[in-house]
Amino acid sequence: MGSKYQQSVRGCLPLWILMLELILLLVFFFFTSYGTYSKDQKELLGTYRGFQDVVIIAALGLGFLNTSLRRHCWSSVAFNLFLLALGVQLTVLLDGFLNHIFFGKININLTSIQRATMSATSVLISAGAILGKVNLVQLVFMTVTEVTAFSTTRMVAKRFLEADNHVTMMYIHVFAAYFGLTVGCCLPRPLPTGGKEKDQTATSPSLFAMLGTLFLWMFWPSFNSALLTIPDERKKAVFNTYYALAVSAVTAISMSALIHPKGKISMTHIHNAVLAGGVAVGAPCYLIHSPWLAMVLGFIAGLTSIGGAKVLLICLQRKPDIFGICSIYDTYGVHYTFGLPGLLGGIANIVLKALQVKWTETSMFSLKLEIVEITFCD
Amino acid sequence: MGSKYQQSVRGCLPLWILMLELILLLVFFFFTSYGTYSKDQKELLGTYRGFQDVVIIAALGLGFLNTSLRRHCWSSVAFNLFLLALGVQLTVLLDGFLNHIFFGKININLTSIQRATMSATSVLISAGAILGKVNLVQLVFMTVTEVTAFSTTRMVAKRFLEADNHVTMMYIHVFAAYFGLTVGCCLPRPLPTGGKEKDQTATSPSLFAMLGTLFLWMFWPSFNSALLTIPDERKKAVFNTYYALAVSAVTAISMSALIHPKGKISMTHIHNAVLAGGVAVGAPCYLIHSPWLAMVLGFIAGLTSIGGAKVLLICLQRKPDIFGICSIYDTYGVHYTFGLPGLLGGIANIVLKALQVKWTETSMFSLKLEIVEITFCD
Amino acid sequence: MGSKYQQSVRGCLPLWILMLELILLLVFFFFTSYGTYSKDQKELLGTYRGFQDVVIIAALGLGFLNTSLRRHCWSSVAFNLFLLALGVQLTVLLDGFLNHIFFGKININLTSIQRATMSATSVLISAGAILGKVNLVQLVFMTVTEVTAFSTTRMVAKRFLEADNHVTMMYIHVFAAYFGLTVGCCLPRPLPTGGKEKDQTATSPSLFAMLGTLFLWMFWPSFNSALLTIPDERKKAVFNTYYALAVSAVTAISMSALIHPKGKISMTHIHNAVLAGGVAVGAPCYLIHSPWLAMVLGFIAGLTSIGGAKVLLICLQRKPDIFGICSIYDTYGVHYTFGLPGLLGGIANIVLKALQVKWTETSMFSLKLEIVEITFCD
Repeated sequence: MGSKYQQSVRGCLPLWILMLELILLLVFFFFTSYGTYSKDQKELLGTYRGFQDVVIIAALGLGFLNTSLRRHCWSSVAFNLFLLALGVQLTVLLDGFLNHIFFGKININLTSIQRATMSATSVLISAGAILGKVNLVQLVFMTVTEVTAFSTTRMVAKRFLEADNHVTMMYIHVFAAYFGLTVGCCLPRPLPTGGKEKDQTATSPSLFAMLGTLFLWMFWPSFNSALLTIPDERKKAVFNTYYALAVSAVTAISMSALIHPKGKISMTHIHNAVLAGGVAVGAPCYLIHSPWLAMVLGFIAGLTSIGGAKVLLICLQRKPDIFGICSIYDTYGVHYTFGLPGLLGGIANIVLKALQVKWTETSMFSLKLEIVEITFCD
Repeated sequence: MGSKYQQSVRGCLPLWILMLELILLLVFFFFTSYGTYSKDQKELLGTYRGFQDVVIIAALGLGFLNTSLRRHCWSSVAFNLFLLALGVQLTVLLDGFLNHIFFGKININLTSIQRATMSATSVLISAGAILGKVNLVQLVFMTVTEVTAFSTTRMVAKRFLEADNHVTMMYIHVFAAYFGLTVGCCLPRPLPTGGKEKDQTATSPSLFAMLGTLFLWMFWPSFNSALLTIPDERKKAVFNTYYALAVSAVTAISMSALIHPKGKISMTHIHNAVLAGGVAVGAPCYLIHSPWLAMVLGFIAGLTSIGGAKVLLICLQRKPDIFGICSIYDTYGVHYTFGLPGLLGGIANIVLKALQVKWTETSMFSLKLEIVEITFCD
Repeated sequence: MGSKYQQSVRGCLPLWILMLELILLLVFFFFTSYGTYSKDQKELLGTYRGFQDVVIIAALGLGFLNTSLRRHCWSSVAFNLFLLALGVQLTVLLDGFLNHIFFGKININLTSIQRATMSATSVLISAGAILGKVNLVQLVFMTVTEVTAFSTTRMVAKRFLEADNHVTMMYIHVFAAYFGLTVGCCLPRPLPTGGKEKDQTATSPSLFAMLGTLFLWMFWPSFNSALLTIPDERKKAVFNTYYALAVSAVTAISMSALIHPKGKISMTHIHNAVLAGGVAVGAPCYLIHSPWLAMVLGFIAGLTSIGGAKVLLICLQRKPDIFGICSIYDTYGVHYTFGLPGLLGGIANIVLKALQVKWTETSMFSLKLEIVEITFCD
């Protein structure tokens, strides 16, 4: 049932939340309306399915992903639903204000709710790093801060760097993981009483976590392809994500057995590393032209997620005085699930973009040469 | 594994069910056929998805919603599947006979199965109020009675009150909740032996209940929009349901912390109150023109669901002799999850309808005035 | 956490898997490419949903179906994901090589990944019969063998018997069940130490198994209709599967209560028998013209699945010396869930096909007669 709150929280929490909810209600009353619809029924259907897949990822997948520790499991699921419901309302408003300033009322449609759900996912990922250290009020504060920061970042990237919706969204993993870790560093360590018992992994909660992992694994192609509009790019995103996930699942499970002294498969490893491929392929998924490249990314992501976790753990345990100052508190290994693979995906995206530009330049150059030749020949 | 049945049930049950199943088979043999299809493949696809969402709500959502008590959890899921499978077969026939009497064979298509699944949901909701008091034969008897009553009510409302499919279906929550409570009042109280142990809430079953809650939460927009045919109304239904659910989740979780003496979030409250918004917005969802109204409904639904539960509980505990005669037995709080929010939705529907009629009349009146003016001017 | 592996497995396993994965990567690099797309976005959407349903059945349904035994539950889910991820990669390549030899690169599209996922399901079904007896390396070996065997069988049936995609796929249940049982017979019996504890059924794992069962129950219509391309056949497949599943659920639950000495519903029976109807109707689902026939199939499937299990068990226990030689090891009752109902479906398919041919012949004959008459009349 989560950590014990101070007595003061009892009075403070509902006042905070109900006030916030009433403010949101007022803002919605004055500034929003449902848009007029030009799209036909069939397009609604398609968007609705994509939207629902994102909701499944956020509410169910990320909710149950963080249930493997015995004493946090219930609060993890409940907090997740709370943060999602609050975060979506906030993000719809923020996105509306940031993108359509001075244009009267904010139009609410399925696409804007879908994007808001995806942005709110950042809070859910960050929460995985600090669960057990924070109470609900602190989480609400973090939600407001993180959602504002992420929406602003996206707006800036879109306006000044001319990045598209897909790319600005796909850096969510890196952003959320390191935001969560930073918050975790700033917060005081939780009291060590009963800490051992709290961190115990049990079979039944672990199966719930596996349920969350599986839902994420199955619906990740929908997440990666949600904001792509060109059919061809969308198909590539789906295929590449599927292949990367398949390879990273195989790699993670065999790596987990390699690392364990008795060759057993560790539950925690699977929860973390199975998804690494999907995260890594997130940003560049629409650029990859053949399955082997996605598979290579999935392979490396699986290796780094488990290998990196093991190496970092050993380093930290050996030299606690050197690294002591930046001792990372990470309840559910958000760093290995979302942080490292997200970085890998970012690098892959930049390399692929650069290669694409080079290829285009080369072909432009050869085209020019041809034109020049043709002109000369003429 | 349920309660212990009397010895006689062992012989009685399968005879009953197998006989019923054979009768159903014969009726299907003589009176039904698959219709000829005029719709194209793409429309099938859309209907199939909507149908599947309803099945997920019925089989998975309501099946797992009622698993939070340790000793009922298994029987709850198994009974739920049984009642659903039986109820759908009965309802398809009943709907067919009531709506197409004297027209030869009943045409079975996806829409009719979808509606039958939604009607059968009433039995699943009612069962939540009486689980632990009843054996399977009693449940079968209740299924036959309730499905007949609900289908007849719908038919009467459609024929004589000219209500549409959506509205007649959306009163299912109120109907089912109070049907279940009435049945619970009529049944003798279960033996008190081991009652305490039976009613214990445990973490692992509670997570299963949370799984059911989440599935209901995620797929509720599909349920509320399933029977609307005009695209614009459908979109409004989806948006309004989503917003009402989001607000009721936030409200319910903060209210739960307010009521608990230590500021903790109660599992039972969440299972009950998170869905209240979706239930409340069910009937009027296609009439609401802007998100704030849906959010207000969700807010009130969340408050009444938890607050009402608390107040009623205190009243009943204080004056047991006065209320003793109508002491309500409600295993899983069906009254607070479906009853009260359903009533709220009914009132909202009537008010909105009346306002709409008034608005239309006003605009008609001003239109007439204008016409008169124009005529005079001429 | 699965059975204890020998020390040697620790070094052997990851080498094997990583080598296999690298070989797969190389083959993908040289022999595959994403096809050029002629289909429009809407068709992608439809195929993507069908594909996702199959993934849900494979990863979630079959993963959680086999979690009812306390000590296998975790390894069952993890192994399932591993086998699925590996099996799909293998099958995509195998299907490509077997069907498009000498045509350059293999085109990968959603349909081929969907078929590969369905074929890989055979490994997951077989694994249910031998879990607890095998380690991961043996499972990988079985995957390679079974996937090759099944793909070859399908190719042979398609080329030489001119069977269509649907029929060749629907024999997967029979193939997988008896493949698994054969492998189980060949493997040495597991050490009996702690066997009792391992085979214990507990409530919480059983609810997970019920979750898997429910997902299979809900998405089975998608599986049975996935490879049918004519809209009319597809609709029939969906309807028939739904009715067969509904009837088999009712029959299985009442039969389970009939067999139990105290009239209780056995969890294991439900996990096995509820799906029997869907399996039985798999092959002939597109041929059945009215619901009653599907319901009869579901009824018989439910009866044989539970009745057959009971009778066989009694026989085996009474005369262990006679049947000792072929004593079947079947961890999760794959024989009753997939084997027997699959055989029933096969017989039904043959009978219906024969009747259809006869009907066609009769009508052809009467048509000829009519033509002759007309000719004579002229």
